Amino acid sequence: MQIYQAHIIDTPSPTRFRILENGYVGVDDTGHIVGLWHQLPDDLMSKTQDKSSGVTLTCFGDKMLIPAFCDLHVHAPQYRNLGLALDEELLEWLNKYTFPEEARFADIGYAERIYRRFVHELWMQGTLHSSVFATIHPHSTTLLARLFRQAGMGAYVGLVGMDRNSPDNLRNTTEDIINYYQSLTIDSNDEVRPIITPRFIPSCTPQMLTLLGQIAQQYNLPVQSHLSENRSEIEWVKQLEPDTVCYADAYRKYGLLGTTPTLMAHCCYSEEKEMGMLRDNKVTIVHCPTSNSNLASGIAPVRTFLDNGIPVALGTDVSAGHYMSMLRVIQYAIQVSKLHYAHSDGKISYLSMSEAFYLATKSGGSFFGKTGSFDIGNTFDALLIDDSYLNYDHYSLPHRLQRYVYIGDDRDIRIRFYHNQPLTKPNINND
Amino acid sequence: MQIYQAHIIDTPSPTRFRILENGYVGVDDTGHIVGLWHQLPDDLMSKTQDKSSGVTLTCFGDKMLIPAFCDLHVHAPQYRNLGLALDEELLEWLNKYTFPEEARFADIGYAERIYRRFVHELWMQGTLHSSVFATIHPHSTTLLARLFRQAGMGAYVGLVGMDRNSPDNLRNTTEDIINYYQSLTIDSNDEVRPIITPRFIPSCTPQMLTLLGQIAQQYNLPVQSHLSENRSEIEWVKQLEPDTVCYADAYRKYGLLGTTPTLMAHCCYSEEKEMGMLRDNKVTIVHCPTSNSNLASGIAPVRTFLDNGIPVALGTDVSAGHYMSMLRVIQYAIQVSKLHYAHSDGKISYLSMSEAFYLATKSGGSFFGKTGSFDIGNTFDALLIDDSYLNYDHYSLPHRLQRYVYIGDDRDIRIRFYHNQPLTKPNINND
Repeated sequence: MQIYQAHIIDTPSPTRFRILENGYVGVDDTGHIVGLWHQLPDDLMSKTQDKSSGVTLTCFGDKMLIPAFCDLHVHAPQYRNLGLALDEELLEWLNKYTFPEEARFADIGYAERIYRRFVHELWMQGTLHSSVFATIHPHSTTLLARLFRQAGMGAYVGLVGMDRNSPDNLRNTTEDIINYYQSLTIDSNDEVRPIITPRFIPSCTPQMLTLLGQIAQQYNLPVQSHLSENRSEIEWVKQLEPDTVCYADAYRKYGLLGTTPTLMAHCCYSEEKEMGMLRDNKVTIVHCPTSNSNLASGIAPVRTFLDNGIPVALGTDVSAGHYMSMLRVIQYAIQVSKLHYAHSDGKISYLSMSEAFYLATKSGGSFFGKTGSFDIGNTFDALLIDDSYLNYDHYSLPHRLQRYVYIGDDRDIRIRFYHNQPLTKPNINND
Repeated sequence: MQIYQAHIIDTPSPTRFRILENGYVGVDDTGHIVGLWHQLPDDLMSKTQDKSSGVTLTCFGDKMLIPAFCDLHVHAPQYRNLGLALDEELLEWLNKYTFPEEARFADIGYAERIYRRFVHELWMQGTLHSSVFATIHPHSTTLLARLFRQAGMGAYVGLVGMDRNSPDNLRNTTEDIINYYQSLTIDSNDEVRPIITPRFIPSCTPQMLTLLGQIAQQYNLPVQSHLSENRSEIEWVKQLEPDTVCYADAYRKYGLLGTTPTLMAHCCYSEEKEMGMLRDNKVTIVHCPTSNSNLASGIAPVRTFLDNGIPVALGTDVSAGHYMSMLRVIQYAIQVSKLHYAHSDGKISYLSMSEAFYLATKSGGSFFGKTGSFDIGNTFDALLIDDSYLNYDHYSLPHRLQRYVYIGDDRDIRIRFYHNQPLTKPNINND
């Protein structure tokens, strides 16, 4: 057993931080947490003195250990466009910037160059689990999955399905999808797994949607897509699928809503009927506040989702979201909820720091397995934080954590543990 | 004359960026800009070869030169609280965190320790002009002004006036104010100057407000304060000053609105009457979007201010704002204007990148003198930006600037020029 001493901070529940000042966490040989202690029991302490016991102790002194972050909605092929075109409206942004960039991933050399930087930046920002949209291109999607494996990080990687209302060079067919999934070896114990990824209803024909729903069931794979991001999109879906009662109902109709574990990004305008459908189908909503601000989509009613018992996770939605750091997404989640609170004249309470942190760690992590907090039985996926330059005046641990979330950055992460493996910096140069 | 070659980018007007790819800027011995060229004229080029000509050329290659940033609303004594207590409501935030922290600045040793870090961070973030609230304490306020002078940066530094609705250990008297201003040597050519600073109407008695208005006129000093930040504050002012037609009218009544150049922070809820008064009195509104999000104040109608011809600058409002970087404030200004746009069903257009950049540079700079852009006659106050790690794929210059604003940070600033002096890192240790 490996034991670490540090200030250990996590959110086993959304309502408050669990803080073990100078605490200890024990991890077994499989990378699972087997103990969490305010003080190390005497028998264990003596074992750490005995080399033959197999128990080792590493002291991190005044540093903080927190769960690694989980990004539940991110577009890997848009990484080059980070920070670009945020002056544009949605359609121009898509047609002038996003679609042409995604089309470039037909070139495997280009894909490798960008995807290496993408995986490197996830590592840099301490996001060790992510659910990723790739493109329609099978080879570069497979490459992306390989880069995640090489980096030692967990991910769902989705080949995007899209066959209508899309540029000619950015469409695939149901045959392409069938061939792709037939070519894969799917191991449910793998840390990097495929996820069924219709882009969204307007870009998929009923045939494509039907097939994707069938494949999700056939291979028992989770599903991710976009839902109710803005009003004109919702109108469009209503026209395309006139027999549905809401946008989510269109996914449901094709077996893409909760038949297997499902992520739906945005939900800025989900109303009562849709929320009921999401709850009943155990869908996780992925809240992307940076993206929703940048694309002027609006503010998702996260408090209402939580009150209705719908699970919520957070996503960067790069590159509509402009930050790869989940710290920034936590901040924005709180801030936009405060603007929502101000707009509701204080009727709808805003998210607390512990709630937003929970969404970015334990809530998002539960989609991948037992991770996102330091509960016993979870995998040890953690960041070691050195905030000494921020802690020049004897701040309390709750304050140190707040300052790290609000003003810290990637410079503060010393070690990234995935299943107890310290991850080395991924190579950004093509092989 | 000193000539610099770089990619030179600024916003002489809000509507667009002026970009000189591989351009040149010439600066005279007094630190003023005397030339701006796409290509260096032959006679000047030959002079740069002749040591006796007094014309020197420094080439910065592929780096970018942009105007240094201006922060028009920031509370220096709240620097220690950066990132803290942003879960709290306004009143709890003030009473539990902000007021007790400001009271500590009676201790000059403590003040020096925190103010050194504050000035250092302004330098680090490339904010070379700022308008600052200090505290009620004359000695530590004078110290802060001295630290700005030592650092070689421009600032307005305001001793805060507050004598009601405040903790007992955080009140001063009209006599204190009179003594303070009598003790100062005020030089209108100084780069660090005092600014009349009533905290806000509720914390100043009519006697205090009357005196501050008189002193502003007597010494010809500018004024800064808070205005219409949130609804309950506006109600409170209406009760305290029942004979006024709006909150701004209360400042006007005491000679604190436009008698001398005036900054008013926030204005989230300024309506038509108040806007007219601000415009007629040539008041600059300081928009603080990070603060307004964190304290759930709301979204200031910046587009409406601009359409009404009211000058607008940007402020961090640390520590209600959680970032010292004006890059982040530019971003938030755009983003909250997009949420406003979404809320108005697209009726009120959002801020463009060039507009927000203009607010943080030329518009804010005009409060200090001729600075904030590279127009001829301005002082050369500039940042040299090395964005090479962001520019791995041949981005255009407009895109490089966008990426720097959205995802760059202090690591990218190589040189900070103030009146053509490259500023060295300010010392953070007490003398």
